[in-house]
Amino acid sequence: MNTLGQLFRITSFGESHGKCTGIVVDGCPPGIKIKERDIQKELDKRKPGQSNISTQRKEKDKVEILSGIFNGFTTGAPICLLTQNKDVDSSSYEKMKNLMRPGHADFTAFLKYKGFNDYRGGGRFSGRNTIGFVMAGAIAKKVLKKIKIETLAHTIQIGKLKAKESGLTDIKKNVYQNDLRCADLKSVKKLENLIYRTRQEKDSIGGIIEGIVLNAPTGLGEPIFDTLEGEIAKALFSIPGVKGIEFGLGFKSAEAKGSQNNDFFQIKKRKITTKTNNSGGILGGISNGMPIVVKLAIKPTPSISKKQKTIDVRKGENKLLEIQGRHDPCIVPRAVPVVENMLAVTILDFALRAKIIK
Amino acid sequence: MNTLGQLFRITSFGESHGKCTGIVVDGCPPGIKIKERDIQKELDKRKPGQSNISTQRKEKDKVEILSGIFNGFTTGAPICLLTQNKDVDSSSYEKMKNLMRPGHADFTAFLKYKGFNDYRGGGRFSGRNTIGFVMAGAIAKKVLKKIKIETLAHTIQIGKLKAKESGLTDIKKNVYQNDLRCADLKSVKKLENLIYRTRQEKDSIGGIIEGIVLNAPTGLGEPIFDTLEGEIAKALFSIPGVKGIEFGLGFKSAEAKGSQNNDFFQIKKRKITTKTNNSGGILGGISNGMPIVVKLAIKPTPSISKKQKTIDVRKGENKLLEIQGRHDPCIVPRAVPVVENMLAVTILDFALRAKIIK
Amino acid sequence: MNTLGQLFRITSFGESHGKCTGIVVDGCPPGIKIKERDIQKELDKRKPGQSNISTQRKEKDKVEILSGIFNGFTTGAPICLLTQNKDVDSSSYEKMKNLMRPGHADFTAFLKYKGFNDYRGGGRFSGRNTIGFVMAGAIAKKVLKKIKIETLAHTIQIGKLKAKESGLTDIKKNVYQNDLRCADLKSVKKLENLIYRTRQEKDSIGGIIEGIVLNAPTGLGEPIFDTLEGEIAKALFSIPGVKGIEFGLGFKSAEAKGSQNNDFFQIKKRKITTKTNNSGGILGGISNGMPIVVKLAIKPTPSISKKQKTIDVRKGENKLLEIQGRHDPCIVPRAVPVVENMLAVTILDFALRAKIIK
Amino acid sequence: MNTLGQLFRITSFGESHGKCTGIVVDGCPPGIKIKERDIQKELDKRKPGQSNISTQRKEKDKVEILSGIFNGFTTGAPICLLTQNKDVDSSSYEKMKNLMRPGHADFTAFLKYKGFNDYRGGGRFSGRNTIGFVMAGAIAKKVLKKIKIETLAHTIQIGKLKAKESGLTDIKKNVYQNDLRCADLKSVKKLENLIYRTRQEKDSIGGIIEGIVLNAPTGLGEPIFDTLEGEIAKALFSIPGVKGIEFGLGFKSAEAKGSQNNDFFQIKKRKITTKTNNSGGILGGISNGMPIVVKLAIKPTPSISKKQKTIDVRKGENKLLEIQGRHDPCIVPRAVPVVENMLAVTILDFALRAKIIK
Repeated sequence: MNTLGQLFRITSFGESHGKCTGIVVDGCPPGIKIKERDIQKELDKRKPGQSNISTQRKEKDKVEILSGIFNGFTTGAPICLLTQNKDVDSSSYEKMKNLMRPGHADFTAFLKYKGFNDYRGGGRFSGRNTIGFVMAGAIAKKVLKKIKIETLAHTIQIGKLKAKESGLTDIKKNVYQNDLRCADLKSVKKLENLIYRTRQEKDSIGGIIEGIVLNAPTGLGEPIFDTLEGEIAKALFSIPGVKGIEFGLGFKSAEAKGSQNNDFFQIKKRKITTKTNNSGGILGGISNGMPIVVKLAIKPTPSISKKQKTIDVRKGENKLLEIQGRHDPCIVPRAVPVVENMLAVTILDFALRAKIIK
Repeated sequence: MNTLGQLFRITSFGESHGKCTGIVVDGCPPGIKIKERDIQKELDKRKPGQSNISTQRKEKDKVEILSGIFNGFTTGAPICLLTQNKDVDSSSYEKMKNLMRPGHADFTAFLKYKGFNDYRGGGRFSGRNTIGFVMAGAIAKKVLKKIKIETLAHTIQIGKLKAKESGLTDIKKNVYQNDLRCADLKSVKKLENLIYRTRQEKDSIGGIIEGIVLNAPTGLGEPIFDTLEGEIAKALFSIPGVKGIEFGLGFKSAEAKGSQNNDFFQIKKRKITTKTNNSGGILGGISNGMPIVVKLAIKPTPSISKKQKTIDVRKGENKLLEIQGRHDPCIVPRAVPVVENMLAVTILDFALRAKIIK
Repeated sequence: MNTLGQLFRITSFGESHGKCTGIVVDGCPPGIKIKERDIQKELDKRKPGQSNISTQRKEKDKVEILSGIFNGFTTGAPICLLTQNKDVDSSSYEKMKNLMRPGHADFTAFLKYKGFNDYRGGGRFSGRNTIGFVMAGAIAKKVLKKIKIETLAHTIQIGKLKAKESGLTDIKKNVYQNDLRCADLKSVKKLENLIYRTRQEKDSIGGIIEGIVLNAPTGLGEPIFDTLEGEIAKALFSIPGVKGIEFGLGFKSAEAKGSQNNDFFQIKKRKITTKTNNSGGILGGISNGMPIVVKLAIKPTPSISKKQKTIDVRKGENKLLEIQGRHDPCIVPRAVPVVENMLAVTILDFALRAKIIK
Repeated sequence: MNTLGQLFRITSFGESHGKCTGIVVDGCPPGIKIKERDIQKELDKRKPGQSNISTQRKEKDKVEILSGIFNGFTTGAPICLLTQNKDVDSSSYEKMKNLMRPGHADFTAFLKYKGFNDYRGGGRFSGRNTIGFVMAGAIAKKVLKKIKIETLAHTIQIGKLKAKESGLTDIKKNVYQNDLRCADLKSVKKLENLIYRTRQEKDSIGGIIEGIVLNAPTGLGEPIFDTLEGEIAKALFSIPGVKGIEFGLGFKSAEAKGSQNNDFFQIKKRKITTKTNNSGGILGGISNGMPIVVKLAIKPTPSISKKQKTIDVRKGENKLLEIQGRHDPCIVPRAVPVVENMLAVTILDFALRAKIIK
């Protein structure tokens, strides 16, 4: 279904080439000061850049607040936010509507919705729906700010090229200063070049994003089923293109020994921390007070200009497909603000469950 | 909370050193033939072996059916299953109850539950709670069998040592023929030796499990929030020690180009399939009819006999800890049947949502 | 929270004097033909009449479909529907915003939302939010029509005056032919006069609505918690002013003997029915194939022009209040289409749970 | 499904003539002192008396605590409670298993569960399942006691005979001093005689129970869907035999005028209350700080010894049925402690949602 969360709950609606894409945010505490520009600021982070590494579409996504905010403050009632779709050209989709684009959801959508799905621009499966996630995240961030929790995200790898590890200061300062959304400014050129060359080859490329939650209090999450890892993973797998998620050392911990992987506890200045943070801030499904660290594997954009083999789903015939249109050769940079905001949505839900915020 | 699933719903209860560990299975269709031995069979897969690579504890876990089955068939009412705890020795836990074991949930449990948590044997956070998952999975498997869906799991890596890739025949035939739960019999010795040597070093080691869903119909899962990846990930993160989850190529897809990663559609004998299965059987959060393939990173057992630095949480002092007791030096093999059964639980939930089973 | 339902799920947003009132409808099967006028038709039933018994406000509520419908058919994606608020005059609410209107939600809203609630026109607590229920019901009705389920509602009592009992034919034919929404045309005048006289006295009056589900299949509902009675009751208590709900004989069954109240089963023409329908079509929380019959007690509109004692909630002083404005002296007639549509919403949810509709 | 509640969540299992009936209580805060006798005390209130007005069955229901309590305190983990079924005689049910008892759930259960339902003693639909509700309520009451909230219930009407209205002192003091569970001791004899005479006629009779929540804080409940009325109603309709629920004046408010029904606000000793409590303590779906008052219509026990017309569901024939066995001629008195405890369960859930208890 299209609703996520228990106490901070978001309901998504809209299609890529329909009238709008939107979100209803439920469970936001009353009395939070929200201006349109607080939301627009996050939305702007998601806009395609003007550089060589992104789509040439112009997306002037502008937030409209329909409900839930009165005299500049949240009222406790559901907040409906939407962005109208502009600069939409559906003609190419009409032509190839029966040709299932490899790597896209066309085929599964066709089957599940018995051919009634809106196929234009990916319809309900389009990355445009992450606009709603970002708008909801903008609200969540304002609430989290009151308890000093912050969420961050940045590009750490494109294809096989890794950026150098960055400190928190650089992540906070640099990520939105470059179109790659990378904290290590020295790596930007190299990684952008890889994307640029890939586009020249009519191809696309994947990458890895790291998300971080700072000042997360202890006690977020629950044992057994509603683990912090599980709920964060569920939320992040909502972002199109995500194919893997790991916390802390993640798949590296599978290769490690216990003596290397265990984080020793220590008391310093009356505060209990761990010396290392291999666990990514989560033990037994519950936050331990260290930064929560998650990595996401993003697959290469399925839309490539190269000829691909596929089928005509109505005629039942093998076909060749050549996708036209203006596509991001790499969606990693554009997914960065989505990760950052989706983390905020999930962490706020847990903060409410833990009764840290009333 | 301790309930998972929408239409096939399981509620877990019990503690490691309490009276029992159990599960309530709700939403099982009526008329499914279930015998105690169907459940016991799955439970036996989870028992520690007698070999050098597992705990020396004897766990004679025996299922008791308390409700929901009448005259040998499910009635549609909730099925309560439990296993009594035997061979329990809590003395060592009493002694070190204030010493937070690194890598364990002791510290987060202590904080979240204000010191009232049952610390004996990890209490609510113990791997013993996966007994309930397995019992629920045994029920789910019987239902899935009616529509020919099958779930499998096997060890594919211990530490940095990988088993050779195996075909489905070997996975079905070999996994429960060796204590490592590995399909490639030629790799078993080598991987077991690594575990054995690690135990000799008073250490532990992690590994990777692959889970597979065979004959999954198309249309399981939903776009946006209740994606197949997201819900499977949430369910699998319930298994203690899981720190990463990926589908299909997963983190490898982040390094790939679109032309490499896209699975081309083809029609063969009137059936639409994809030539490759880099997506792991899931596109847009929905199954495409190919096998669903998921990999899990399992961290090394946190309980190691080496001395570790930690704290006394009540005194607020730094301490040294030496964990006694009989622990698995590697929990990967024992997690294999848990993965297999937890996949069954989740897939059945989706099959019910998709109205494939009434 | 503002979401209702399991498989057919509606999320409400909007305020009385805000920009709009709306609903997101999730879980609607794909391929249902929906035109704007299907929804507008139901919405028009809810409009205030031009007669003496209703508010003098003009409410030209016009539906806008924002998503989920493509080429005239539902796509399976969430359907966002909204109605913009027009003819809004908030001035009187500004003046008396600190005076808690007796019988209204002003006081509880003020406390719960710490004074940040939108008080204009009752804000989130206004009867205007039932516009969303009606729009969602219009969708549900189109789906239910495919399986021949129909929902009805009609006014059966105003104050102490009861309309004569009507047959199904009259209910279907007459209810929307008069502003009272009454099936017994001979009673209309008498009951309307009571409302008219009450308004003259600057007072308001309550009444009783009967809701009916025709052709409900057997097997809707579940034992124990998600009973058909319980879920219908929960949905109907969402309608402002409802203070009591009963099924079949309801409170009269409390006065009856078992031999009077039990409905005897009979087989006629190979169909099993009950001779009487004292149960209101529900046994053990599950529909038995007879018409589902529910009655709702609606309290008198709290907004009356008489002077009333109340408090100034910010000053903490006792005050006198004289409510201005254009209010329905009796909300019963206007609640009739809301009941009819809310029943459709709930019954469709149960039909989906019972897998009667795919 | 068999789970109720959001943050205080109960999962029911068990059958009338199966091994046991039980409940898993999830979401209970840690650190609550619970002894077996706290639960047994509530359970004993539900036992049939030895008098003429109840069943002659002996039900020595004894609670067993399986999990979630450690060293006498709740741990925050799920609490599994069960009661074994004793003194069970299923022979009469075997004989008449295809004869659908009028007024019972036999027929709807048969259809819904395709004939696989456990028909012995009503199986999953038996009143015995309320044992779980009472055990869960016992836990809830201990938590509510910390914030001074109390729930009460008492018999106020049997058939058409009403008890005199009683004050809170009498309700607290008298209800469990008589088998009728009536606060007005002077009415007891008269009402009990009615039950006794009805039994002599081989018949049964219904009645009305009033439930009360004392010291309920303001702000419990939510607007629109999760109203306090709606959620309480849903919970109470889980009790077998309930056919109507009303709050405050309820169906009487439908007959009233606004000037009679509105409760005026007043400030006395710096506390805001209402002069009357016609609303039953709930406005706009949210508690206003006055006592919450709910009335339940209970139908007459369907099991009567008189001959009744029914069908053989497998043969498809009309039949005559004569129910043997030991049945309560009136279930009202035995439902009183169930109402009291189920109210506690629901109110605690709302108190947790409102973050009144951590």
